[in-house]
Amino acid sequence: MNIEIKTRTEKDLLGSKEVPFHCYYGVQTLRALENFNLSVHKLSDFPIFIQALAMVKSACVDANFKLNKIEENKYNAIQYACQQLINGSYHSHFPIDMIQGGAGTSTNMNANEVIANIGLEFLGYAKGEYQHLHPNNDVNMSQSTNDVYPSAIKIGLLFALDHLNTPFQKLIESLSSKANEFSDILKMGRTQLQDAVPMTLGQEFSAFAHTLQNDLQKLNHIMPDSLSVINLGGTAIGTGINTETEYRIKAIQALSEITGKNISSAPDLIEATTDMGDFVLLSSLLKRTATKLSKISNDLRLLSSGPRTGIGEIQLEPRQPGSSIMPGKVNPVIPEAMNLACYQIIANDLAITLAAEGGQLQLNAFEPLIALKLFESIELLGKAMQMLNEKCIQNIRANAAHCQHLVENSIGIVTVLNPYLGYETTTRIAKMANESGESVLALIKAEGLLSDEILANVLAVHNMIQPKQHAA
Amino acid sequence: MNIEIKTRTEKDLLGSKEVPFHCYYGVQTLRALENFNLSVHKLSDFPIFIQALAMVKSACVDANFKLNKIEENKYNAIQYACQQLINGSYHSHFPIDMIQGGAGTSTNMNANEVIANIGLEFLGYAKGEYQHLHPNNDVNMSQSTNDVYPSAIKIGLLFALDHLNTPFQKLIESLSSKANEFSDILKMGRTQLQDAVPMTLGQEFSAFAHTLQNDLQKLNHIMPDSLSVINLGGTAIGTGINTETEYRIKAIQALSEITGKNISSAPDLIEATTDMGDFVLLSSLLKRTATKLSKISNDLRLLSSGPRTGIGEIQLEPRQPGSSIMPGKVNPVIPEAMNLACYQIIANDLAITLAAEGGQLQLNAFEPLIALKLFESIELLGKAMQMLNEKCIQNIRANAAHCQHLVENSIGIVTVLNPYLGYETTTRIAKMANESGESVLALIKAEGLLSDEILANVLAVHNMIQPKQHAA
Amino acid sequence: MNIEIKTRTEKDLLGSKEVPFHCYYGVQTLRALENFNLSVHKLSDFPIFIQALAMVKSACVDANFKLNKIEENKYNAIQYACQQLINGSYHSHFPIDMIQGGAGTSTNMNANEVIANIGLEFLGYAKGEYQHLHPNNDVNMSQSTNDVYPSAIKIGLLFALDHLNTPFQKLIESLSSKANEFSDILKMGRTQLQDAVPMTLGQEFSAFAHTLQNDLQKLNHIMPDSLSVINLGGTAIGTGINTETEYRIKAIQALSEITGKNISSAPDLIEATTDMGDFVLLSSLLKRTATKLSKISNDLRLLSSGPRTGIGEIQLEPRQPGSSIMPGKVNPVIPEAMNLACYQIIANDLAITLAAEGGQLQLNAFEPLIALKLFESIELLGKAMQMLNEKCIQNIRANAAHCQHLVENSIGIVTVLNPYLGYETTTRIAKMANESGESVLALIKAEGLLSDEILANVLAVHNMIQPKQHAA
Amino acid sequence: MNIEIKTRTEKDLLGSKEVPFHCYYGVQTLRALENFNLSVHKLSDFPIFIQALAMVKSACVDANFKLNKIEENKYNAIQYACQQLINGSYHSHFPIDMIQGGAGTSTNMNANEVIANIGLEFLGYAKGEYQHLHPNNDVNMSQSTNDVYPSAIKIGLLFALDHLNTPFQKLIESLSSKANEFSDILKMGRTQLQDAVPMTLGQEFSAFAHTLQNDLQKLNHIMPDSLSVINLGGTAIGTGINTETEYRIKAIQALSEITGKNISSAPDLIEATTDMGDFVLLSSLLKRTATKLSKISNDLRLLSSGPRTGIGEIQLEPRQPGSSIMPGKVNPVIPEAMNLACYQIIANDLAITLAAEGGQLQLNAFEPLIALKLFESIELLGKAMQMLNEKCIQNIRANAAHCQHLVENSIGIVTVLNPYLGYETTTRIAKMANESGESVLALIKAEGLLSDEILANVLAVHNMIQPKQHAA
Repeated sequence: MNIEIKTRTEKDLLGSKEVPFHCYYGVQTLRALENFNLSVHKLSDFPIFIQALAMVKSACVDANFKLNKIEENKYNAIQYACQQLINGSYHSHFPIDMIQGGAGTSTNMNANEVIANIGLEFLGYAKGEYQHLHPNNDVNMSQSTNDVYPSAIKIGLLFALDHLNTPFQKLIESLSSKANEFSDILKMGRTQLQDAVPMTLGQEFSAFAHTLQNDLQKLNHIMPDSLSVINLGGTAIGTGINTETEYRIKAIQALSEITGKNISSAPDLIEATTDMGDFVLLSSLLKRTATKLSKISNDLRLLSSGPRTGIGEIQLEPRQPGSSIMPGKVNPVIPEAMNLACYQIIANDLAITLAAEGGQLQLNAFEPLIALKLFESIELLGKAMQMLNEKCIQNIRANAAHCQHLVENSIGIVTVLNPYLGYETTTRIAKMANESGESVLALIKAEGLLSDEILANVLAVHNMIQPKQHAA
Repeated sequence: MNIEIKTRTEKDLLGSKEVPFHCYYGVQTLRALENFNLSVHKLSDFPIFIQALAMVKSACVDANFKLNKIEENKYNAIQYACQQLINGSYHSHFPIDMIQGGAGTSTNMNANEVIANIGLEFLGYAKGEYQHLHPNNDVNMSQSTNDVYPSAIKIGLLFALDHLNTPFQKLIESLSSKANEFSDILKMGRTQLQDAVPMTLGQEFSAFAHTLQNDLQKLNHIMPDSLSVINLGGTAIGTGINTETEYRIKAIQALSEITGKNISSAPDLIEATTDMGDFVLLSSLLKRTATKLSKISNDLRLLSSGPRTGIGEIQLEPRQPGSSIMPGKVNPVIPEAMNLACYQIIANDLAITLAAEGGQLQLNAFEPLIALKLFESIELLGKAMQMLNEKCIQNIRANAAHCQHLVENSIGIVTVLNPYLGYETTTRIAKMANESGESVLALIKAEGLLSDEILANVLAVHNMIQPKQHAA
Repeated sequence: MNIEIKTRTEKDLLGSKEVPFHCYYGVQTLRALENFNLSVHKLSDFPIFIQALAMVKSACVDANFKLNKIEENKYNAIQYACQQLINGSYHSHFPIDMIQGGAGTSTNMNANEVIANIGLEFLGYAKGEYQHLHPNNDVNMSQSTNDVYPSAIKIGLLFALDHLNTPFQKLIESLSSKANEFSDILKMGRTQLQDAVPMTLGQEFSAFAHTLQNDLQKLNHIMPDSLSVINLGGTAIGTGINTETEYRIKAIQALSEITGKNISSAPDLIEATTDMGDFVLLSSLLKRTATKLSKISNDLRLLSSGPRTGIGEIQLEPRQPGSSIMPGKVNPVIPEAMNLACYQIIANDLAITLAAEGGQLQLNAFEPLIALKLFESIELLGKAMQMLNEKCIQNIRANAAHCQHLVENSIGIVTVLNPYLGYETTTRIAKMANESGESVLALIKAEGLLSDEILANVLAVHNMIQPKQHAA
Repeated sequence: MNIEIKTRTEKDLLGSKEVPFHCYYGVQTLRALENFNLSVHKLSDFPIFIQALAMVKSACVDANFKLNKIEENKYNAIQYACQQLINGSYHSHFPIDMIQGGAGTSTNMNANEVIANIGLEFLGYAKGEYQHLHPNNDVNMSQSTNDVYPSAIKIGLLFALDHLNTPFQKLIESLSSKANEFSDILKMGRTQLQDAVPMTLGQEFSAFAHTLQNDLQKLNHIMPDSLSVINLGGTAIGTGINTETEYRIKAIQALSEITGKNISSAPDLIEATTDMGDFVLLSSLLKRTATKLSKISNDLRLLSSGPRTGIGEIQLEPRQPGSSIMPGKVNPVIPEAMNLACYQIIANDLAITLAAEGGQLQLNAFEPLIALKLFESIELLGKAMQMLNEKCIQNIRANAAHCQHLVENSIGIVTVLNPYLGYETTTRIAKMANESGESVLALIKAEGLLSDEILANVLAVHNMIQPKQHAA
């Protein structure tokens, strides 16, 4: 059987090619499809990025129209097409691999071609009749991949970070809520995995909440300002070649309105065209959060270790049988999966660093990898935070009695006697307790070192887990 | 509208769940699906891994049968099911995310459940009637995720490396072929981006071929031996609990036959259960190749820089228009895409390192990430090598005249006069040439430092690009 | 011959040891010396850190004195000793390896012991007579390594960043000054190593200056606020055990006065005790700057490649003969050394990430590596910036005529004709020029595509390197 | 006061400089000293590298002499000087920073100058009278930095690896010895930090020994072959310019004799001049060992956690008081320091990867960083292994009774009943035990599921820690 696919002929610098007629993309997209087949990540897997690209295109044509560079019917056609993409339509016509050579030219041309063809149909023409609406001359007017592409990445990231806020904030809230729930559960603190001094389980979870809260604040404090400074209008290398003076400002203004973000123009467009610093910074902040979440996951796994031969201060909700051979085994699969997400995000930061360092002269040819890895890291972080929150944190239970037992049995409470007995005496008591297996309290009493009254006061919970109110 | 999907009830440690009746997987797979939704990489995206897992399962049931641990009809059913998976069927019933907590238990149980249900139908029962063929008691007999899963990863990687050999070898051959084609083209060698001494373009491409050849040899010399040593039979933690003495040997033997590989048993199964060393080593070798390919890509981009204001010694075949704004621009998109692939592979090595370091006590819970990243790196490397070969290397053309011109115009040829005139005289000549813009040859002649005859001999190509035949 | 060194006997939890009498450190420092001998980096190699530690100790004794916890003579002795350390004396008595187990306890005890012994002599006692001034009971009163050590690291880093500002700012100024010097030199811009469109060499250097200026601003905007929030007063695990309520505020206040910095208390001391987020962030910013400096160094090496067979748009000052065999060769050794510094800083960021991720429960045991790597990176960055500035940037010369020649000979100027002739016509012209070797201008004129007048206007420098003033 | 230092005048390509008369190095070393002041690592800190460099120089002059290229008195002088360096003399005259631009030229010239001046004095001349023995024309004859420097690095690394063998082997032996000592101590194995099935503490330590043994074997199997293939004779770019055909073979032969190693010539000298693959591979193997040692250290810290509220299966020898505030606290400082060493080695691998990837065309300018990081990693690994062995492993004690108690109290032993009772029944029992706090054994007995005789047999230690002898 032989199916005939109707095609149209398109041509470019390299010659002619047959493009399937139903495709809204054109010859340059087709070439990119043939050239790049490296990853499973297609442009269409990142709708937020396609939408951002369309917003940029919409802003550019708006500026061109205001400067009388483009006819009204073309303007209307391009705006209509951009709106379609912003609404989520036609995304399947962005089939190119996110990992592409060419510094994003294929992505930009994919957008130019799809917008031109949607626009042509809007105007009553057939796809491919570019004499009426041209991907380069019209859709890409006053633009270069080198300003449009990084600008669209930044806009896309701004929206992606907006989305990240929800799971981030919810995870923090769940941790805070657990901190309240556990505020009366006394437990041993541990430093270097060795028994230290008492604290509450609530304090432990409160610290988890605060450390993430700090990251969310940093992210929201630093990144929107960084990412909203773009190089649009710089065109090929930042000199703004083939634009007019007023264009840049008008385009940025239009983009601010379309996105609802406070977009501004980079002070040095040559610099902004080639520099990847904002992306490196964003990746660093994501990595910072990943190191914290990995540490928290490690702690959750430690604290829930057992059930009989570990620390066992908390219990994680069983999510699935833990073993194909060991009956009844339940494993901390959700924190483990979070660890994996964190390792991935940390590794993505290296990929981004390598790509940023590799840029040369007036452009960084490796932006496509940076874009892929940033969108991937943000999405992964969001999903992993939601998973950790809903499938682990919200359902953690404390083994309060066991926590209490461990404190009472601990040598570490000797620390609180330090100011009363001195470092040397308490050291001697601690050593004796450790060697004999006896309790610190029993030894103190046996030696008559402190009166029962003072002891009771010193060992009161409120005196062990916070600074002493005005002192003895 | 309300579509009713027929389900069956399955239960496990955590209770009952409704499994869609058409699914060959069961309750534990379902739980994993609900738990893990982090990446776009599903088990079914890695058929080679599912096949390897089925081979391991097949080998295990074979050993159990030989030891009279399982009835013949169950044996036949399991073998039939494994064969189906090996043939590529039923892979869509492996929907779980490759990034999963639980150290691979979900993957193993997915296989156990699918095999059990295929087997049940083979025996004339309905899916889910596990009393006749049980995922744990029968399919997983004498096994644990902790020996089956890493063993399957290793088998899968062995096959993946087999596949990698073809594009690897073909790329080397193309580079060698270009080395022959360019063997007479004299050009300047450059060290530290400064003009050094002459060589041929053929020598340059020959070095590319040799450096990759060396890597392919190392990979084939080191990895098959490493990866074919597996921990099958160690079960939960390497002690071989719930197996009989003869089982391990018989299972390994069967696996060797099924895979056609020379599989052997790890000398210390406790160690082999938890250690990730073979995976770290494989990743390191892939990273090594990535650093070489990235360097080669960088060189290709440098050598083809221009067309007018760069080095321009070679021309890469145009693959697509290079710019949406700059007419006629053609960019080295294929080497650039290779760079991106290399950065990704280098970053994957970090993810693998982090996961390997994170293992604790008797197991590494982070194997799923290691598996994903290794399969991804190998596949990416293979595709990128094929791309580089077919879409770049094979069609490179030399700008022979320009190469020749640069040599003649160069100061670097003064080096060859060093043994005749001494370091200080030649240094003086070089400096004069550099400052005056004149040619080295002209200056030598002007000063009468060497006779024309000797000069001609010294500057003969064959005397500049190799050691001198027995001397002047 | 047998030299007898006079010793004194000191004891601790583990027993007695002989300490050389002339040493101001005591038994615990001695044990650390025996335990850790891994690197070449001693505490005494980082005077800024010892000074910061002494400032913290001084602030703590101040708070204790104000709260009537310590007698006046002891207070005076400790203050005297701290002042000595702040003045740079006694640093040789800090011989411990920066790479140490114990989360900094050895460092803290080294300070406690040295301060006690300086203080003892100040009071008229002999070193080691700790009954009169005790390293733990007196010098370390109300303190734990776990709050003192990270607080001192942060104070030390604040001062280190102050020092970094000078070479950072001077490098930026030199780049700006070169930007002015080169503001009239027209040259080709290059994207993806292929000829793009014209720009000035001044614009290129201005972008270097701006991209670093942006980093310096970010560093000064973000880090002082982060690093001046400390966990002093949290003692062992952040609960403030063995302190009184007023202590923390008084100590922080004193420290602000001593350092002249606006120090404040962390809002969650449990969190602040274990979290390494500020250090990760600082390392990320240093890494960001390193990727930029490495890119700039790569560009300098590319632009100065030659002298005859490279790009050759600029000349770096010769710093040393470039080859032991090739006479007259001069290499870009300073940018190369900068690359090495940058690679080191990027790698240090990984070490810091690994250490941060590895923290467990109420403490991060790996802070000593984080401290070492941060101080090393800052110092290295400062030295490398000074080197790059003084030994390279300040003496760069432009090859103006060669730059001009390359522009005139380039095909890239066709881009500026795009708005006049359309993408398809200019593409055709570019292709013809590339294949024939002719100049774009000649082809345009031959075809009569534009009048000489328009051509002259379009190709005017001011029209190529910036947006067009209100248009044609 | 004004001290006059006597100097001599030396000159090079860049002009004249005054060299302090007592210095054996000359003008080019002086320039390098002025240029590079980035790290604390001087050439003289790596005597093994200086010795290797002298061995290479000795081999080269030997080949030159055999080919009648150099007079006998010069030959004798150079050989004398090389021997002095090999013997460890004059190393203080190698003051240059290991982090240097110039791809090692400064290092090579430092050696050339020191050898020339030692040789001049041997011949009765004054330092600096290079007309009698020239650093370039004589000492560096037939050589380039680009073949001598990487060859010397490789030779130096071969010796460094020889030295590493001792602490590596001793650490393995101590672990094996502990494995024997602990062979009868039954304990719980843990997977994913959850109780799994029993094993012996001896098996756990045996696995530590085996996993390192495997690395030592890999290192010794792979690296000597890789590192002993060198590019000596390739001179500037691998073409062997300024050598004669026979030279290379003779020099390699001489070097084999001098080093006692089986040195051979790289099959493609162009490739070998620029490729860093052997260094990347070595670093990868060191990193692999680091991930294993970090995991072992993590395990030791986990297993010794406590003393009262952790796992507490083993006790590490107290090495120093663990806290300035908590009396009696002892921390696992030695494994912690090992972690730090491992993080450093892993980070060094990234520095090496970056440097390797950054090479361009016929040379890698970043070899000096690779050399530094490799020598540093090997030395650090050796010291850390010795530390871990002598200060931790050798003195570990088992808490046998506690280990036994944990096993008996554990739910995990239910696994061994799986083959007798089936996965579902044992799952039910495990769940009941977990919820009720009762022991598995008691529940089995209460339900009469297995006879006492069978139970005793199944739960016999030898049936739990290894496969069953031919079955029940």
